[in-house]
Amino acid sequence: MKIGLIGLGKMGLQITTRLLNDGHEVVVMDLAAAAVESAVAQGATAAATREDLVKQLEGSETPVVWLMIPSGFVEAEIEAWSRLLPAGSIIVDGGNSDFRQTLKRAAAVQTSGLELVDVGTSGGILGIKDGFSMMVGGSDAAVATVTPVLVSLAQIDGWAHFGPTGTGHYIKMIHNGIEYAAMEAYAEGYRLLKDGSAKDIDLARVAEVWQHGSIIASGLNGLVAEVLSANPDLTGVSGYVAENGEAGWTLEAAATEGIAMPALQVAVDVRAASQEGTVNFGTKLLAALRNAFGGHPVNK
Amino acid sequence: MKIGLIGLGKMGLQITTRLLNDGHEVVVMDLAAAAVESAVAQGATAAATREDLVKQLEGSETPVVWLMIPSGFVEAEIEAWSRLLPAGSIIVDGGNSDFRQTLKRAAAVQTSGLELVDVGTSGGILGIKDGFSMMVGGSDAAVATVTPVLVSLAQIDGWAHFGPTGTGHYIKMIHNGIEYAAMEAYAEGYRLLKDGSAKDIDLARVAEVWQHGSIIASGLNGLVAEVLSANPDLTGVSGYVAENGEAGWTLEAAATEGIAMPALQVAVDVRAASQEGTVNFGTKLLAALRNAFGGHPVNK
Repeated sequence: MKIGLIGLGKMGLQITTRLLNDGHEVVVMDLAAAAVESAVAQGATAAATREDLVKQLEGSETPVVWLMIPSGFVEAEIEAWSRLLPAGSIIVDGGNSDFRQTLKRAAAVQTSGLELVDVGTSGGILGIKDGFSMMVGGSDAAVATVTPVLVSLAQIDGWAHFGPTGTGHYIKMIHNGIEYAAMEAYAEGYRLLKDGSAKDIDLARVAEVWQHGSIIASGLNGLVAEVLSANPDLTGVSGYVAENGEAGWTLEAAATEGIAMPALQVAVDVRAASQEGTVNFGTKLLAALRNAFGGHPVNK
Repeated sequence: MKIGLIGLGKMGLQITTRLLNDGHEVVVMDLAAAAVESAVAQGATAAATREDLVKQLEGSETPVVWLMIPSGFVEAEIEAWSRLLPAGSIIVDGGNSDFRQTLKRAAAVQTSGLELVDVGTSGGILGIKDGFSMMVGGSDAAVATVTPVLVSLAQIDGWAHFGPTGTGHYIKMIHNGIEYAAMEAYAEGYRLLKDGSAKDIDLARVAEVWQHGSIIASGLNGLVAEVLSANPDLTGVSGYVAENGEAGWTLEAAATEGIAMPALQVAVDVRAASQEGTVNFGTKLLAALRNAFGGHPVNK
């Protein structure tokens, strides 16, 4: 199908590549000329302005614009597209928006006769190879329209439509909460292996052994094996660990329902302390993992 | 090779099966006649007494006795075998012993001219199919002697010799600490999905989608998918979560070195509270997961 793709950052560019490889027509927009050129070199069409992109989507039974942009820009972007797209069009928010905002935005775009579909996307910069894991919210009709795109982007059994608009970002928020707490679990263990009483343990080898048959084998632990194999002492990693917001939203959503999430709270606290200088091998590993799966810079 | 295998519980019986399937000769001992019969039916030889087993191992260049028994029985068992086995023999402790005890026992058996090899074993009751993940401590010579057995039991790249006696149990202890904290991470997230503001989310489907391409795909999450697919509301699970000891040892070992493990502390606290009646969908999931990978009873 034909789709407009707004935002050619790390994730947007990979999504474009996967869609083009699967035979879709992608009309792209980004402020960074180099990213646009890269997409065009792969077969995408560039749109110079929003109006131009809307024009290029004319003829689609249901025009679809997929936003893959930082959450701080989503509000304004959705407003702008709402004024331009014909009634019946679909806006997909594939980023990490706060589900509470997504619910409000869904109601707002409806007044323009548009539909909002929210897609929580996991897999980071590794997704281009094997496909992403995608959690989708929206009306049955709107999700049916974008299904060919979801099938191209996700792994087999790696996406599902879980409920009305907002559900995708809600589930992705909780996914990221689990991710934070699980990363903290590994970081604490590997720190003890590194700094505890037993010296000179080959940590990368431990990670490799655990990755083969243990209860704690995981995508995260596989990345630990890669990271520590390449840089056993995490030289050059300061131990400052950034935070995106989803974990805090998860804690807020839980508190609203009277649900405690003490392990997630700890994970958030440890990152906050790292930003104030409390760093160690564990926080270095957290930063190195974020770099490995998200392409996030390893230092502040 | 020929090996004595003491203890035919869930793990011991599976280890016996894997060894027999790989052509080893296994002489077994257990108080439970049914377990012994099951091993014999698969090709093992039974020993009626310790003296009988030692006699059956005569002719081995280096007699090897592998203990696969609950940690509370290891001390007495090692003492008994130390009095019977000829000098040069190897005792393997394949259970979850406290590494501090393992260090003492290694010194004690050395006075009888024996060697102790410690093997931390992960994979639980799932290990029989694909092999275990094994962390080994001991002298180079002793580990070389038992290597044919390790190769038969572990996955390819799923075992390694990490250092002197004690190192295997030390690494396995930290492994279990990570396991506890990671399980708590998932339990908190799935509890919010179940009890939070969004109702009627298909949790097993969420687990399945996350298992395909997400950053939090893992062995544990795969078990969540299985558990919730079979029993979405965890009906019949009380939410009492037992505790084996390794997590407490990990916290002690960390505290000795001045290392904080706040996420692990939380995981231990949540289990302790569950034993006093603070149960919820999260603690039910913890209990169900322990049952799925360890065969532990789902209620007290």
